[in-house]
Amino acid sequence: MTSDPAQLSLLDLVKATDNVPYPEDPEHLEIKSSAYRFLSHAEDLALPQVDLGLIVPAVAKVLKDLFADAGIFVFDEAKLTVSISKSLDTFDKRNEAIAKVARTLKDQGYFKPVLDGWRNELYVVFNPSKVPYLLVERAASPLFGVITYGVHITGYVPASPTSSGMRLWVPRRSYQKPTFPGMLDNTVAGGLGYPYGIYDTAIKECGEEAGLEEDYVKQRLTSVGVITYWYRHKYSDDLNLFQPECEYIYDLKIDEDTVPHPVDGEVAEFNLWNREQLDKELKAGNFKPNSALVFIDFFVRHGLLGPEDEPDYLNIVSRTHRRFPYPAR
Amino acid sequence: MTSDPAQLSLLDLVKATDNVPYPEDPEHLEIKSSAYRFLSHAEDLALPQVDLGLIVPAVAKVLKDLFADAGIFVFDEAKLTVSISKSLDTFDKRNEAIAKVARTLKDQGYFKPVLDGWRNELYVVFNPSKVPYLLVERAASPLFGVITYGVHITGYVPASPTSSGMRLWVPRRSYQKPTFPGMLDNTVAGGLGYPYGIYDTAIKECGEEAGLEEDYVKQRLTSVGVITYWYRHKYSDDLNLFQPECEYIYDLKIDEDTVPHPVDGEVAEFNLWNREQLDKELKAGNFKPNSALVFIDFFVRHGLLGPEDEPDYLNIVSRTHRRFPYPAR
Repeated sequence: MTSDPAQLSLLDLVKATDNVPYPEDPEHLEIKSSAYRFLSHAEDLALPQVDLGLIVPAVAKVLKDLFADAGIFVFDEAKLTVSISKSLDTFDKRNEAIAKVARTLKDQGYFKPVLDGWRNELYVVFNPSKVPYLLVERAASPLFGVITYGVHITGYVPASPTSSGMRLWVPRRSYQKPTFPGMLDNTVAGGLGYPYGIYDTAIKECGEEAGLEEDYVKQRLTSVGVITYWYRHKYSDDLNLFQPECEYIYDLKIDEDTVPHPVDGEVAEFNLWNREQLDKELKAGNFKPNSALVFIDFFVRHGLLGPEDEPDYLNIVSRTHRRFPYPAR
Repeated sequence: MTSDPAQLSLLDLVKATDNVPYPEDPEHLEIKSSAYRFLSHAEDLALPQVDLGLIVPAVAKVLKDLFADAGIFVFDEAKLTVSISKSLDTFDKRNEAIAKVARTLKDQGYFKPVLDGWRNELYVVFNPSKVPYLLVERAASPLFGVITYGVHITGYVPASPTSSGMRLWVPRRSYQKPTFPGMLDNTVAGGLGYPYGIYDTAIKECGEEAGLEEDYVKQRLTSVGVITYWYRHKYSDDLNLFQPECEYIYDLKIDEDTVPHPVDGEVAEFNLWNREQLDKELKAGNFKPNSALVFIDFFVRHGLLGPEDEPDYLNIVSRTHRRFPYPAR
């Protein structure tokens, strides 16, 4: 990202996040021929074996070196697959095994740029019946390329006779955050940790990240959709991991006289900006990549960005609602 | 579709419209091996040859029988492609040739269930630079499987202290319509004919289909997104055509005391229904298929259908925003 103003189009911002080639793109073949498919266990009469994610060769090699005989994974080099062992035939067994894998990698110092963000928070990987299939430490989930879930909330102050149009609350991330320090973000956002619900997580995060009371939020929060994109995140020169992401979206109508304030230290400051100020910062590349998409989606839903305003409108809308070839929540 | 109440899930409604298999589905291979790719002309230095649509074998055969030596199409049976001839190197030449093809098919009585709906309205097929590449009679567009565009408008009356929540204006299509007679529909909808704009078409259709004045509409109309889905429409037992569709979506906030009224005879009646009445009719399969998706999208955007209310939420949202492997508007 550059901070040179007016350099990025909205489609550039989408492409920076939804950056895994589509099946119809020629570059898609390269992925098929290099990454390992991460599969559920085979020979279960109740559930077919399905794709759960993608494991890059550098990760597959370490898993094989450390866990070849641990009864956790089945490696097939010819088919380029890493499957969960069929002996791990319960949720608890799989969770215990994957926890051991993640903890061993962390303790032995593998994939530091990824596992330094260790959270002690578990993410769920779903099976085709939408039942939790396994749990994985949040920081370790990109190593398996599985879908992750979160909530993103846009706090807005409606246009009034005395204001210059609608304004949005835009925080700057703490400069101490392990990921994207100092970048601009959605009003409130958080990952969906097991076993919390989506709405409950949204309410909780509004309290923790913006100091907004539960009752206040419940009266003003509206579920407005979900964005999905397939992100490939370059953690370092030799670690470029797949992260299909699903962010449930809420709008939060904030009163003129309410000022969100950082509570948990994750936010450095809150700005109340109008569309023009937001546009300028978006185009300068100053937003955390996926947060930019949430604001673009907000503009689309609120008539602030129409099909005749934006040449890549259709591409932007469809690429922020990508369908993954995996079972999902 | 059945009229047995409470038989269809929302995902069933989506699947009835977005019914072309995805690349990751096994059924996708069958399409690849049976339908002809419809391609732009080759050997143009300014523009690469690209996919524009899909032509089913029954249509390809007739095109070959009638136009093999007409300098319009290039047929490649080995590659399963039908390309525009490179001699048609201008927009005008292509339009003239395709108009001749459509007119000949119509006059000679081919594909009657499709061409009986002849409209004298032209649809645009775009090139990768988003410039119109060719025009095709609206009724003939499914024969080439190209993307078509329209506008769909949801008229709603906000909840008030005296009403039981938000209500939506739901028309029943005229029993004389060539397509989907007597089915329920979006408040207003229409195809995007050349050379009209998207917003202008929305305004015009509100006048024609609901008797709403231009100024009234302009003050209350909001652009809120676009839905896209890949529809395969069985016109008859041996004619099952591809129709990738793109519908620009608007919300129209209607005053309590405004009653839309049919003007052009395309609407039999208007109903003002709340969410529960709509749900009942949706689940009974009484809506025109793509109109059902627009109401579902409305529910999602307005907090009336959330991720914890609907087990197929994510799948529904992503399948109504499908990305097509073709250049688009």
